[in-house]
Amino acid sequence: MPDLRKDPIIGRWVIIATDRARRPSDFLREPVTPRGGKFCPFCEGNEDKTPPEILGWRKDGQGPNSRGWSLRVVPNKFPALGIEGELARQGEGLFDKMNGIGAHEVIIETPDHNLTLSQLSERRLEDVLWAYRDRMLDLKKDKRFRYILIFKNHGEAAGASLEHTHSQLIALPVVPAYVREEVEGAKTYFNFKERCIFCDIIRQEAASGVRVIDETDHFLTLSPYAPRFPFETWILPKQHESAFENSQSHVFENLAKVLKRLLQKLDQVLEFPPYNFVLHTSPLTESTQDYYHWHFEVMPKLTKVAGFEWGSGFYINPTPPEEAARFLRESSLAEPAAERNARPDRPAVSA
Amino acid sequence: MPDLRKDPIIGRWVIIATDRARRPSDFLREPVTPRGGKFCPFCEGNEDKTPPEILGWRKDGQGPNSRGWSLRVVPNKFPALGIEGELARQGEGLFDKMNGIGAHEVIIETPDHNLTLSQLSERRLEDVLWAYRDRMLDLKKDKRFRYILIFKNHGEAAGASLEHTHSQLIALPVVPAYVREEVEGAKTYFNFKERCIFCDIIRQEAASGVRVIDETDHFLTLSPYAPRFPFETWILPKQHESAFENSQSHVFENLAKVLKRLLQKLDQVLEFPPYNFVLHTSPLTESTQDYYHWHFEVMPKLTKVAGFEWGSGFYINPTPPEEAARFLRESSLAEPAAERNARPDRPAVSA
Repeated sequence: MPDLRKDPIIGRWVIIATDRARRPSDFLREPVTPRGGKFCPFCEGNEDKTPPEILGWRKDGQGPNSRGWSLRVVPNKFPALGIEGELARQGEGLFDKMNGIGAHEVIIETPDHNLTLSQLSERRLEDVLWAYRDRMLDLKKDKRFRYILIFKNHGEAAGASLEHTHSQLIALPVVPAYVREEVEGAKTYFNFKERCIFCDIIRQEAASGVRVIDETDHFLTLSPYAPRFPFETWILPKQHESAFENSQSHVFENLAKVLKRLLQKLDQVLEFPPYNFVLHTSPLTESTQDYYHWHFEVMPKLTKVAGFEWGSGFYINPTPPEEAARFLRESSLAEPAAERNARPDRPAVSA
Repeated sequence: MPDLRKDPIIGRWVIIATDRARRPSDFLREPVTPRGGKFCPFCEGNEDKTPPEILGWRKDGQGPNSRGWSLRVVPNKFPALGIEGELARQGEGLFDKMNGIGAHEVIIETPDHNLTLSQLSERRLEDVLWAYRDRMLDLKKDKRFRYILIFKNHGEAAGASLEHTHSQLIALPVVPAYVREEVEGAKTYFNFKERCIFCDIIRQEAASGVRVIDETDHFLTLSPYAPRFPFETWILPKQHESAFENSQSHVFENLAKVLKRLLQKLDQVLEFPPYNFVLHTSPLTESTQDYYHWHFEVMPKLTKVAGFEWGSGFYINPTPPEEAARFLRESSLAEPAAERNARPDRPAVSA
């Protein structure tokens, strides 16, 4: 008998097909490995093929848009939103619209075309997280923006149009629908219990252990109780904090470790799957500190397509989260390879 | 400058990239045409390869699960939900679950492997709609069910695992998330205006005409104001009615005409695209008649993948709905071909 399970935050039901547990090997797909060969605007030496950089970490003495960097942030060449102008909110009869004002940036995570995010050293992965933070703090100053969405598409099947490893940032003048639902769900819970629902989940899951993948002093990595997708995984900071960018500096160091470990485990168990991750963090202009709790959601792209879900919001997941967690928990990682990325550091911190 | 537009029913914002209107030819994809060649359990003569039929329309004197049918409904061989048992609602600490009770049926729309739904005669397409209705009326008697979801995946890229044209029905003991949002959104509007929001949209859109694709006495086919996907299209009955299965018989006849015309237009303009459609209709155990309004949503699967939308609920649509509507409105259909499906009728109606 399958289970129907309810996500306690947003109240969405999903079908968990407990009868026919899908093992990792049941998902057919192409392993995602950089092939190179084509011209790549994100590679070192092609700095003039992107719009001028917003942020670049390189050795002293070298100017922006030159070689020698370890990480660059550039505007998306084909932005979904325009940065200049007024919102000009207006109606059209019963409809509502505004100008598509926003920022759309690309975080180029390494100059090396052959590396994936899971293969970056912990130090370089930490740099990526600091870059997210730095860009968020900067864009927060723009009072037109209500939300900053940070996400990564890894592999063509997950929507990546360029192979060279990168994340994206979109600053929006509105709060996206799922964020709104999640924030409101957490607020409702807080109003009733006077506790953060994410903190409650962390306590219950850490105690039971059946859906836990990894645990450190600062983070819990788990399969959520009602996942939409096979091997969907959340990384939650144990310390309550609503906004990613307000975290203390040791948090980024620790997150780099657990994120790298999760990505390596996914590579091992699912053979280099395509995936998306999304940073869930507080809207910019709302006081959510009591009840919201930032986290990462990582979604391997394993099922071929699931057309009707788009139209119904109803999910059928063939892999129970307890099974997914067991596979990922029990995968043993090889000893860390020697640092493959001898590159200059980010500047001594602005934190 | 792109537009940010808000769906007036559920309040979701989408980005409409008005600057770089994507024309139909900008979307690369494989045309969906039945290839045949493999064994197909839905073809005539293979009736014993499906679970025993729930409904079959065939000439008098022939028994169920024999040849000579024009339409069959059978249980899904690999159902997402089980039909037998109690819901057994229960908690697991702060989580909630119940048994995965439900029905999962397949509507085999024609015995002919080589036809697509758009190629069925109006008469046969009407039969498909009557089959939806008959199954809904039957399943409604089961008091465990709260919603009946009817949808179609056409083409592998849209999630169809079998090529032979078919729709699916899932009866659920809960209301899916998107349906809940839509119903609540319509209710909020009604509470404020004392009018149905769908009726208001129909009036405004018919008067303006810019997003209208097709119009008859009984239906309006349009590109919605804030579509998530390029060429997303809704078919709305002009007569207010919350539940599809309660429609009068001339409605099914008329719907067959407009649905066939839309599918033909999509085939012509987008060259036989994969698509999903979903019937949006009232939950079973709620009195929504004042404010909810059933309709079909048809979503061609044109964009390759859109990974991060899964995680954010935020959509970027490269084709403004006014452009999509113009392409579809202006596509001229050839004269209807002679009936290709000389097959027995459904029994004289139970309506």
